[in-house]
Amino acid sequence: MTTKDISRPVCILGLGLIGGSLLRDLHAAGHTVFGYNRSRSGARSAVTEGFDVSAELIPTLERAAEEDALIVLAVPMTAVEELLDDINTHAPTCGFTDVVSVKTAVYDAVKARGMQDRYVGSHPMAGTTESGWGASMTGLFKRAVWVITFDHLMDAEKVSAHWTGIWKDVCQMAAAVGSEVVPARVGPHDAAAARVSHLPHLLAETAAIVGDNGGALSLSLAASSFRDVTRVAGTEPGLVRAMCEGNADALLTALDEALAILQETRDHLATTPPSVEQLADNGYRSRLRYEARTGHGRSQESVSPMLTSSRPVLRMHPGQPNWDKQLIHAETLGARIEVF
Amino acid sequence: MTTKDISRPVCILGLGLIGGSLLRDLHAAGHTVFGYNRSRSGARSAVTEGFDVSAELIPTLERAAEEDALIVLAVPMTAVEELLDDINTHAPTCGFTDVVSVKTAVYDAVKARGMQDRYVGSHPMAGTTESGWGASMTGLFKRAVWVITFDHLMDAEKVSAHWTGIWKDVCQMAAAVGSEVVPARVGPHDAAAARVSHLPHLLAETAAIVGDNGGALSLSLAASSFRDVTRVAGTEPGLVRAMCEGNADALLTALDEALAILQETRDHLATTPPSVEQLADNGYRSRLRYEARTGHGRSQESVSPMLTSSRPVLRMHPGQPNWDKQLIHAETLGARIEVF
Repeated sequence: MTTKDISRPVCILGLGLIGGSLLRDLHAAGHTVFGYNRSRSGARSAVTEGFDVSAELIPTLERAAEEDALIVLAVPMTAVEELLDDINTHAPTCGFTDVVSVKTAVYDAVKARGMQDRYVGSHPMAGTTESGWGASMTGLFKRAVWVITFDHLMDAEKVSAHWTGIWKDVCQMAAAVGSEVVPARVGPHDAAAARVSHLPHLLAETAAIVGDNGGALSLSLAASSFRDVTRVAGTEPGLVRAMCEGNADALLTALDEALAILQETRDHLATTPPSVEQLADNGYRSRLRYEARTGHGRSQESVSPMLTSSRPVLRMHPGQPNWDKQLIHAETLGARIEVF
Repeated sequence: MTTKDISRPVCILGLGLIGGSLLRDLHAAGHTVFGYNRSRSGARSAVTEGFDVSAELIPTLERAAEEDALIVLAVPMTAVEELLDDINTHAPTCGFTDVVSVKTAVYDAVKARGMQDRYVGSHPMAGTTESGWGASMTGLFKRAVWVITFDHLMDAEKVSAHWTGIWKDVCQMAAAVGSEVVPARVGPHDAAAARVSHLPHLLAETAAIVGDNGGALSLSLAASSFRDVTRVAGTEPGLVRAMCEGNADALLTALDEALAILQETRDHLATTPPSVEQLADNGYRSRLRYEARTGHGRSQESVSPMLTSSRPVLRMHPGQPNWDKQLIHAETLGARIEVF
């Protein structure tokens, strides 16, 4: 069956942390969902748990074509281009999305194949430092931001009703698993992701290395500040490379800002008397703004874990007049949208 | 009453997060503990909760002298020198310790007043981003590392039995509130703290600022990696300044290492193709070593929150022959000690 809000079955290619968790949530919501996993052991585990999963790609794509499913590419960037070719061959009319953490590179690959009138990019801002089917879980996307791109609407003379339908389905899928949908074009998405995800990974790795360089006494003295700042350094290095190297241009901009701030801090720390006033004040204010935006304020957290975020909300109908302008407006505000 | 392990009452000067939490834990353990707080409202709150607390410094010190209490300076570095003078005047024979996060500066102030034969430095590696009596809690020090310094043992021709007794009492006090005692001299302590605490604060502030610079969309897209890397940027800026500026020399060493790593990463990210392989691999290995040391491994965490750390343990008796060599050995290993 399909749920009332998503008009098609969903076919997920790649059942790692993101794809597997999406499969679990859609299944739990009663939506028809099936998937493919390259690793036979992962596929077997999923089947044993009662999911409709195969380790055969082509029959899965043929079934997606037959059922007019929405295809979700839940594979690393390095596997995207080959899968796009397979979709072109075996499911040539299906709408599809992806969940890769960089969006410009995927959109470029889609455009290179002329597939943009059935593609809607997306990126759920959720994850843990674990990976693979074994790390997948229900509820991973609850209250997470799920970015949906809309570049095709801006770039094309005219988008098809088919594309508008796919766009709405991707939004509804994200909402069905509890996410807040934030629209953004690939460029602004990648610039923001460099600042709030990829740069923090580089800083975490650096903190971990400098701490470790201090030897046994340093590691013994490491407490909660070290634990939290370095947590994402525990991410599998291949995943860190994929997201950072796939977004190198935007990440260089963010990294250069960080280097300038740290170099200035170094200069102020080397004066007599030393001062880190500017950094401490600015960093504190920035952190408070982040807490206000996400609703992760400290006093609030202790009251209720179920609060909603403080992101503004816009209600909109895909395809209505001026929806392109509404989407740009939402992107500028970092607003979440509800579609009807 | 005094508990069997600590031979004196404890007098705590300053009842903020650390001093207040220590008061709560020692009181809960049935040990005689009293305190002073400069803020009358904080003192009143503590009295209302049934604690033996005063807002009058001199009578508190006179009582400490009378009862031969162990005095704990739980005030910021900026208030230490004046308090040392007050102790010299009103409690001229009492042993004392401090809990300031930088140790060289305190030791220098103690030596400048010739008070080192009754001083033992200490630093509990525990805290939250909150401060003040209102933030104090029981159990804050459970499984935390509590550093105890021993420079006087190395610097003096001969230490007094009185000093050895104070040293043992400080160890027992830390153990009584559930901490793991790690001995370290002030220089190695400050070098390690720069790496695992002060530098992570600078990197967290930087991450917060660069994320915030991206505006509304960036803050909307910030997820768990940003939340954790920037958490300590929520620390009150005055506290960040006190610890970083009070440890400027050691922090410069750590910051220069971080800048070199980030600059090299920038170079590798600007090549074609971009690569962050070296950083991602090294950071991942460093984080795993930290997890192994603290026992905060990811799979272990889900099994039991009560595990002990993987720090080596040395049992020793303060004053026994060669205990200076044992302490140096423990410092090198980052080992915790149990005194008897």
